[in-house]
Amino acid sequence: MSTLAPIADLESNPRVKAVFDDIRATRQTDFINNMWRYLAFDAGLLEQTWAEVKAVMATPSEIDPLTKEMLYIAVSIANNCGYCVHSHTAAARAKGMGEGQYAELLKIVALAAKTNHLATALQVPVDTCFDAGAPGA
Amino acid sequence: MSTLAPIADLESNPRVKAVFDDIRATRQTDFINNMWRYLAFDAGLLEQTWAEVKAVMATPSEIDPLTKEMLYIAVSIANNCGYCVHSHTAAARAKGMGEGQYAELLKIVALAAKTNHLATALQVPVDTCFDAGAPGA
Amino acid sequence: MSTLAPIADLESNPRVKAVFDDIRATRQTDFINNMWRYLAFDAGLLEQTWAEVKAVMATPSEIDPLTKEMLYIAVSIANNCGYCVHSHTAAARAKGMGEGQYAELLKIVALAAKTNHLATALQVPVDTCFDAGAPGA
Amino acid sequence: MSTLAPIADLESNPRVKAVFDDIRATRQTDFINNMWRYLAFDAGLLEQTWAEVKAVMATPSEIDPLTKEMLYIAVSIANNCGYCVHSHTAAARAKGMGEGQYAELLKIVALAAKTNHLATALQVPVDTCFDAGAPGA
Amino acid sequence: MSTLAPIADLESNPRVKAVFDDIRATRQTDFINNMWRYLAFDAGLLEQTWAEVKAVMATPSEIDPLTKEMLYIAVSIANNCGYCVHSHTAAARAKGMGEGQYAELLKIVALAAKTNHLATALQVPVDTCFDAGAPGA
Amino acid sequence: MSTLAPIADLESNPRVKAVFDDIRATRQTDFINNMWRYLAFDAGLLEQTWAEVKAVMATPSEIDPLTKEMLYIAVSIANNCGYCVHSHTAAARAKGMGEGQYAELLKIVALAAKTNHLATALQVPVDTCFDAGAPGA
Repeated sequence: MSTLAPIADLESNPRVKAVFDDIRATRQTDFINNMWRYLAFDAGLLEQTWAEVKAVMATPSEIDPLTKEMLYIAVSIANNCGYCVHSHTAAARAKGMGEGQYAELLKIVALAAKTNHLATALQVPVDTCFDAGAPGA
Repeated sequence: MSTLAPIADLESNPRVKAVFDDIRATRQTDFINNMWRYLAFDAGLLEQTWAEVKAVMATPSEIDPLTKEMLYIAVSIANNCGYCVHSHTAAARAKGMGEGQYAELLKIVALAAKTNHLATALQVPVDTCFDAGAPGA
Repeated sequence: MSTLAPIADLESNPRVKAVFDDIRATRQTDFINNMWRYLAFDAGLLEQTWAEVKAVMATPSEIDPLTKEMLYIAVSIANNCGYCVHSHTAAARAKGMGEGQYAELLKIVALAAKTNHLATALQVPVDTCFDAGAPGA
Repeated sequence: MSTLAPIADLESNPRVKAVFDDIRATRQTDFINNMWRYLAFDAGLLEQTWAEVKAVMATPSEIDPLTKEMLYIAVSIANNCGYCVHSHTAAARAKGMGEGQYAELLKIVALAAKTNHLATALQVPVDTCFDAGAPGA
Repeated sequence: MSTLAPIADLESNPRVKAVFDDIRATRQTDFINNMWRYLAFDAGLLEQTWAEVKAVMATPSEIDPLTKEMLYIAVSIANNCGYCVHSHTAAARAKGMGEGQYAELLKIVALAAKTNHLATALQVPVDTCFDAGAPGA
Repeated sequence: MSTLAPIADLESNPRVKAVFDDIRATRQTDFINNMWRYLAFDAGLLEQTWAEVKAVMATPSEIDPLTKEMLYIAVSIANNCGYCVHSHTAAARAKGMGEGQYAELLKIVALAAKTNHLATALQVPVDTCFDAGAPGA
């Protein structure tokens, strides 16, 4: 089920084809997952989203690629996006995440969810020393 | 503002004192942040929460301590817990997170939030190849 | 899958029949979507919910009907309700939403999600001039 | 900080006064908390919201008043509404919630948050026997 | 669909078998629902989660078992966990929740969600008298 | 309170100054709100975020500027971002939102939140006719 009908010949649109070609070249695979196929209903949305994903996730930077995927999974779980949980868990595994790391990731996410709810329940005041904006901090 | 009145002499409760002593020993600091001071209204809740935090966050494991803190921040942002965002951002900095890593963390969280909402909006079907439970997967 | 067994002859309950009749008359269609069929397990819940939906969504007011549906979609995406995303996207299309407007709606929702997470991450202080409750504001 | 300037003489509006009078009579107190003072900028919104709160929360029913307040707190924590957490925690205490019950409530909320995130992370398939809508269920 | 392949012979792992045996004894049933089957990919995660569920949910305490399940449902709805909504609604029914109580539970959850969003929209300031941490409160 | 110390002389960084100049020119005001001042700790994050906000929110398109702001408010309420609720409510008023429209917006958001929770609670199956991806849809 989806809110868009699949489009038969997506790559007849040259802007879509250009993005798909770049996805294939960047990821070194012929596979284009559904996220991109659905975003392709609007070429501008597809281009802007892919450009950002490529810049943030597929460009070497200070955070290593596997850690990036685990951060992506963590946010996707908390935001409850089933599609993103599936696609980024697969991506993390492709980048080497073992079962031990996966179990640890889940323990951290579950613990954070728990303490998030406890802090909200108690409306715990932020300690002054945590305020980076305090004079002299 | 909080839902609990601060308790004057928390450590007169030996169960609370034992947890606070362990926090001080584990973190090698005299500082006990508000989260623990508020949870202390119920010794069992304090003990169980600290035991879990210590086991997951303060025990050497496959994921390094700084990455753990960044994962905690990511979940806390998505769950919108101001207290936890403050305390774990401070903890990540204490463990060496530089401004470049912090900026990258924010870019990943922001991008994940964006694509989470897009995938939910379109109700994108999960690609078969992402289903680890599929026969033959 | 659902948490309720479908009821065979819903309209044998006159309170349910009265609501369904009003839905049909208001929307000028014979189709009753599942939301109402499931809420019908409790006539009071069905009546109160439909009365509110009719008053807010199906009564002429300052916000035009298509904008109302787009606002409903925006909230439903952020709250991650798959059923509501589906039903209100269909409703918005029935009220004239074109693909260009739909793409724009998604861009706004995605951008808001992104900046929501950034503002929460940084715990950005609210500018004084945004406080409508400030003296002299 | 708020998005509305406080209105000086709220009860000069007879519709607002009627609702405030009913709140005072129902709760047997002269105190009108800020939620109602702010909703009063629109008499219809105030009337509809109070009517629903009165019907659901202040009318004897199958769920006792304290349990209702604890359920309200649970949802408000999960939805991260600081105002509602404060007001309904105060209301639950006024209806007799002791510190032991409060601690238990927090343990349940925290545990549910944890397993919610774990089930979402693993995308655990719903067991067939939980589907009330299954033929023969 | 799930992010883990089902494991063929889960109970060949003695740590998993011990937990499953305890679940069967505690619940007096042979049925092990999917949540535990999936968590079993990591024995430590399974053990810790079950220990906490058993302590909080299956141990006599100040809050009765049916109320506990209803609180669990409330959080699971607000956190949008389909699996948890299904499993705890089934559990609540097994503990005696009637359709009248279920309808009331839904009315409370729906009303809380509504006022949560209204309080957030208006950024209603917390009344001073709700602050348990205020001097003299 | 914030997670970043304010930077004294932000515009000594020419990349920051260029963005701030563009914000001033686009909005025709000298005021730079805190969101941009905080994002400025990383010039790339500031540039990318402003470019996207400008393209989506400040460029004439099929959705009028006031509707865009109301959609932004709706998402920000559901995502519980206090900063964004404040800034976009102020922006919507600056673009002409009257109190009547504001009250209506709140009624729609509150109603959507309510039915989102009801549909999730009941796990209402999506009607086949809402599936745009169905063959023949």
